[in-house]
Order: sequence, then structure tokens, then C-alpha cells
Amino acid sequence: MTRETIGVLGGGQLARMLVESAARLGLPTRVLAGSPDDPAALVSPSAVLGTLSDPVAVRRFLLSVDVVTFENEFVDTKLLAGVAAEVRETNGHVVRFAPGLAAIETMQDKLRQKKLLEDLGIPTAPYLAFEGDRKGLPDWVSRANAEFDGHAVFKWARLGYDGKGTLIGPKPEKEILAFCEAALAKGVPVYAEKRIDFSRELAIVSCRSRAESKPYPLVVSEQRSGICRNVYGPATAFGVAPELEKRAQEHAARIADRLELVGVHAIEFFLAGEKGAGEKLWVNELAPRVHNSGHYSQDACACSQFENHMRAVAGAALGEVAPAPRFAMRNLIAPGDDPKWASPPVARAAGRLHWYGKTQARAGRKMGHLNFRAEDPAGFSRMISELDRIEREWEEKT
Amino acid sequence: MTRETIGVLGGGQLARMLVESAARLGLPTRVLAGSPDDPAALVSPSAVLGTLSDPVAVRRFLLSVDVVTFENEFVDTKLLAGVAAEVRETNGHVVRFAPGLAAIETMQDKLRQKKLLEDLGIPTAPYLAFEGDRKGLPDWVSRANAEFDGHAVFKWARLGYDGKGTLIGPKPEKEILAFCEAALAKGVPVYAEKRIDFSRELAIVSCRSRAESKPYPLVVSEQRSGICRNVYGPATAFGVAPELEKRAQEHAARIADRLELVGVHAIEFFLAGEKGAGEKLWVNELAPRVHNSGHYSQDACACSQFENHMRAVAGAALGEVAPAPRFAMRNLIAPGDDPKWASPPVARAAGRLHWYGKTQARAGRKMGHLNFRAEDPAGFSRMISELDRIEREWEEKT
Repeated sequence: MTRETIGVLGGGQLARMLVESAARLGLPTRVLAGSPDDPAALVSPSAVLGTLSDPVAVRRFLLSVDVVTFENEFVDTKLLAGVAAEVRETNGHVVRFAPGLAAIETMQDKLRQKKLLEDLGIPTAPYLAFEGDRKGLPDWVSRANAEFDGHAVFKWARLGYDGKGTLIGPKPEKEILAFCEAALAKGVPVYAEKRIDFSRELAIVSCRSRAESKPYPLVVSEQRSGICRNVYGPATAFGVAPELEKRAQEHAARIADRLELVGVHAIEFFLAGEKGAGEKLWVNELAPRVHNSGHYSQDACACSQFENHMRAVAGAALGEVAPAPRFAMRNLIAPGDDPKWASPPVARAAGRLHWYGKTQARAGRKMGHLNFRAEDPAGFSRMISELDRIEREWEEKT
Repeated sequence: MTRETIGVLGGGQLARMLVESAARLGLPTRVLAGSPDDPAALVSPSAVLGTLSDPVAVRRFLLSVDVVTFENEFVDTKLLAGVAAEVRETNGHVVRFAPGLAAIETMQDKLRQKKLLEDLGIPTAPYLAFEGDRKGLPDWVSRANAEFDGHAVFKWARLGYDGKGTLIGPKPEKEILAFCEAALAKGVPVYAEKRIDFSRELAIVSCRSRAESKPYPLVVSEQRSGICRNVYGPATAFGVAPELEKRAQEHAARIADRLELVGVHAIEFFLAGEKGAGEKLWVNELAPRVHNSGHYSQDACACSQFENHMRAVAGAALGEVAPAPRFAMRNLIAPGDDPKWASPPVARAAGRLHWYGKTQARAGRKMGHLNFRAEDPAGFSRMISELDRIEREWEEKT
């Protein structure tokens, strides 16, 4: 157990909730945020202001912390490693990264995720990477469409989130080409994968410290326009076989052990196949950090994903992950850019609201979320109605 | 519903937990804290630094907020009213107080509390106030001891907390005189009351907004050396008659309505009399604010006392107060001044830790608390063992 200062790279809602959890535990933190109005800076008295791509800001940040963790894996690991080395040589100040930069490098690239999964024998959709000269792109697109019977999903290998960086076919060739060109222009590789004909999307977060691994329950995840809108669970209370949860938890532990991850990590799954014994989990994506599909844990578990992440980073024992009998999380996603959606629905009182304090609303932006827990199916139905009501009133507010 | 900035007068743990709750709701806050290391300042990017008795600091603070609430009723209401009036005249800036200053004035004086309770016909121990010239003090002490059969409790009418300002007789006359003289020297009145021969101490917090009142459950409160150590409940799950809880909730509503309180308020009770129908609640003390006996609500209720207080102050609907089947809260009280007790017990992972971040430990100082919830009696027993274990390891840490 250390009482070192934990640096959180980023100022968004994930950083904010990490900082809040650490404060409750008495663990000192510092965030690197772009603006004093960033969600995490709003709850930190001593944020370092600057961007993650600015070596001067990163240097100032690294000098003020002992261990660095991430709210987002899309960081420039070379820049971080370089500045950390320079700070060690020049100032004798040693900074660790948790998880380590090698694990971040694997996780930030979906093609490397694919290879890791294949290597571990964990099911994931067949894929075809684009390689070579850009002139070969149209040929490769035709090949991918043919290989996956016109049901290919095209993906950026990096920088995708909330549906961005994903193009679900069939789509006109022109659109696919434009999608791929945009990635290649940024130096981001692209690939195609077979579209899995899934019945539901499931997800799991799990936490690994140097001493132990603790998996949260498998949950059901629902998206709207590619953005997570609804998470509920445990999945086993909603018709998912306990063996599938057990398998998901094993997958999580094996991936984390292989990469020597520290802290929370997430897996998104597709559930596909004949209902019953024919059903199977296919890994969609991995993330080496706290994840939207684990937000429910703030109010459904004694120890949330945020608290356990900070516990793991600090080298403390992990907390209890057993969930309430039933729970749900609803994201409040701004329907547009109107400033009215930068205001929370506090006039409505049910469940627990987690507002992020973003000063500007933009269409598709996650502004906050609501957590509910229930003891039984009737309570769950009531809570879903309540979530619908609060969400609708907030979305339609005038 | 407003999105005005809520000012919290004070920088301690109650202010900290109010600020944290407001942040989750998206309600802007500002604290007036004595130091950037104060518990509340550690989670606020924009604390105003200064003391509550400094008109310049108070002025700066009032100019930066729209409505002011309190973590402590021991404030100089005349100073606050004066600066608020000056700020309104000079700057055209109107600041409200929630609860109002008249209610604070009643609540900060235990003799006025006594009169209010008598007036409402709510049972409280018979008392005898000291009035007149200090030379009459020895006579008054003799009279009080005689009137209460040697079982008098001497109290300061103001500024008492955590056992300070209370002297439980019988005690040597010299000690009683010194205790009273110390108060009178500060201009604080003293009084004596009959010591109630209680079986248990109970407490309740309740929240009143302009639109509604919501009482939390009656709970059991245990002190060590006059400081609250343990709170558990609901009391009705531990042998307390449901009618007594109902009566306590009615008392709370009547007191709050009479004073037109806004936000959370607390009543501490003595439970006395023959077990069963002969049992009766005697009010010990009142507080017009969030209270240590309500900390459990952070993890045992959908909406904590802190969130409901801020909801009431902001004019929002109040949240749900139904508790878990069983719950407990344990304060972590520094056994001495050693800096080791300024470090939290995070290496131990059970329940939920709420650490206050105080930079210095002092004997008797509340450094944090632990909350637990359980579904049944067996779970409750396990959780009490766990609390004992964590508390012991923290107290004995080397």
C-alpha cells in the first residue's frame, strides 16, 4: 500500500469518477486536463492544465505524481516513455505507469487485440487486415466483402469510440473507401471483420492487482446509434447461462494475466448462436481501463470499478464486487448541441444521478448517467420505467 | 429548481460530503474554508479561503454564491446578516440562507431548543438554566444537584460537540464550577438538566424542502467518550417499536415545520423506561444540518442525507430514503496525535470507506468512517466483525 500521488491522464468523466473514488479512500490524485472546466478538473483542486500531446505539460504532470493511470488508452506511449525517462535522468524522479505502457500499446490497437485473442484461443470474429499500398484499397474492400458474404464490418484499428471508427456493412463501396481513407490519412490501420449475427451484446469489467483478480458480473449492454445507452444485469438474471458468465470471467483473467494489466479492464461481447447450449460469446473489443459498462458498480456493488481501479493502482487489497440482485445504468446522451442539455435532470428524484459537469452539450455526448438497483423482477420493471421517464423528460426538456 | 451556486460555510468533512453530493448532481458549489488542506477544499477547485469570523472573507464568499448553507450551526448570524445586507446594498447581489438565520439562531442555542421542545410538547429532560450574576453560580450548582438528585448533567448552551460542553454528574463541585466558568467567560450560557437513565441512544435525520418532508429511519447510536462511534439500524430491526420510529419522525416534521427549516436536520434521543409499552423517547439535542448519525445513508439509501440536503437547498425534488434491510456506520476516531492516524485503512477492503483527508490526526478527531449494508441478521453480524477488525487494525497500526 502506497500513499503516492496517483496521476490520471485525462480530464473527462472517467477521470472524474476515478478522482472521486480516490478522494473517498484518502488517496491523493492529480489530473492532466485540457481545461479547468473539464469534468475531472471540476472536482480537483490541483489539476495540471495541458494536452496529452504537449511534452511540456506532460513533463509538469509527471514531476507532480508517482504513478500514472489512464482514462483512455489512446495516448502517445512513445511521448510518455520519453518524458518519463527524461524526468528520471534530469530530476531523479521515477514515475511508474499502471497499467504499463506495453499493455497500453497492445490494447490501443484493435488488430493487436485480435492477435492476442487468437493467440489465447478466445473466440473473436474472423478478420482481414488491410496491408500494403493505398492503391490496393479498392481490391481489399472487394475481397473483404466477398470473404464475409457482404456482411463485413470495417474498423479503424485505433481511435474508435462510441461507434466512431466502425462502419457496419453492407454499404456502398464509395462510403467504405472514404471511411478507410480517413483512417489511413491519420496513419491508423484499418481492417474488416465478419459481422456477427448476435442476439445481445454483453460486457464485463474485471479488476487485476498484483496480488489478485476480481471479476464483476457479466452484464447486458444496449447501444443506440453505436453509443452505449443502457446496461443492466447481472446477465444471469436475464436468461444468460451461468457458464457463459464463468467463461467471460476466465477470458478476462487470462487476458489480464497475459498483459500483466493493473486495474480495471473491460471486454465487450457478442452473444450469438442457437439459444441454449449453442450460444457462444464472441469478443468484440477490449479496453484496459474503467468502462461505461461498469458504471452500475458505483451503486450496485460495495466497491465500484473506479474504487477497485484506484485500489489496484495503489497496491491495496481489492474490494467486494458482489452485485445487487438486479441493477441498471442509463446514460444521459445529449440529443443535440442545445445548451439546455448541459443541465442535469435533478428535479426528478429517483435512483442515483452521476452528472459529469460538462459545460457544453453536443449531439451524442454522454452528459451523465443514472444508476438504479432493485431486489426483484417487479422492482426492476419499476426502475426501468423510472429510467425511461427521467431520460424522456430530460431529452424533451424545453 | 435552480442552478445557482450553493455556498457551504465551512471546510470540514460535512462540507466535503455536501460538495461531493452536489457535484454528482451537477449543482455548482463553493466552500469557505480555513485552509486549502481542509477536507472540503481538497475536493473543490475554487474554495474561498478565510474564517467565518472575518467579514472580508465572508464578503468575498457571499459575492461568489447565490444561496448559503451550513455544515455547522455555530456561526455568527449577526455578522452573516450584516455582510449579506451590505452586499445587497453595495453590489445588488442577493444571497439567501438555507436554512434561514432565524432557525439557525434557535438551533445553535440548546436553551432555545429546550424552550421550543416544551412549546411543542415534545418530551425532553427537565432543566434549570443559570441566570443572573456569576457570584450566584455556586448556589445554582447546589440547587441543580438538589433538584436532579445529584444526577444533573451540566451543559453549555452553545458550542458543544463530540462530548465537549457536556459534564455528566455526579462530579465534585469544583469541577462543575470550572466547567461553567469556562462557558460564561466566552459569553456562553450554561444550564443543568436531569440525567435520563436511558437504555439506548437513538437518532434520526430528516429532510425538509419547501414542498415536502422525508424522514430517514430511526437508528441506534453508540458513543465512546462522548463521541459517536457506531450507528446502526434501522432501529426497528433491533427491537425498537415501530410506533417509536413513527413518533420520532413526527417530532422531526413538527420541529422542522415550526422553524421552517430547509434541508436535513437531526434529533438525538434517549430511549428510557420499561422495555415495551413503557418505553419513551426523550429528545437530547437537535441540529439543523447533516449529522454524523445519518452518514450510513450514503450507502444504505438511494439518496443520502448529503444529496437530499443539497436537493432541498436547490429547490429540487427529494430522493428516496428507504434504507437497506440492515446497515452500520463506524467512525474512525484517532486514538492520539500521531501522524500515522492521518493515513487511511485502505489496505483493508470491506464495506465503503469515506476518508476525510485531514492532514493532522488529533486524539478524538474523526478521520473518516466506514459504511456497511447487509440483507439479514447473519450478514449484519459478519459486517460488525469486519468493522471491528478494520477499526482495530487501523487504531493499532504501527
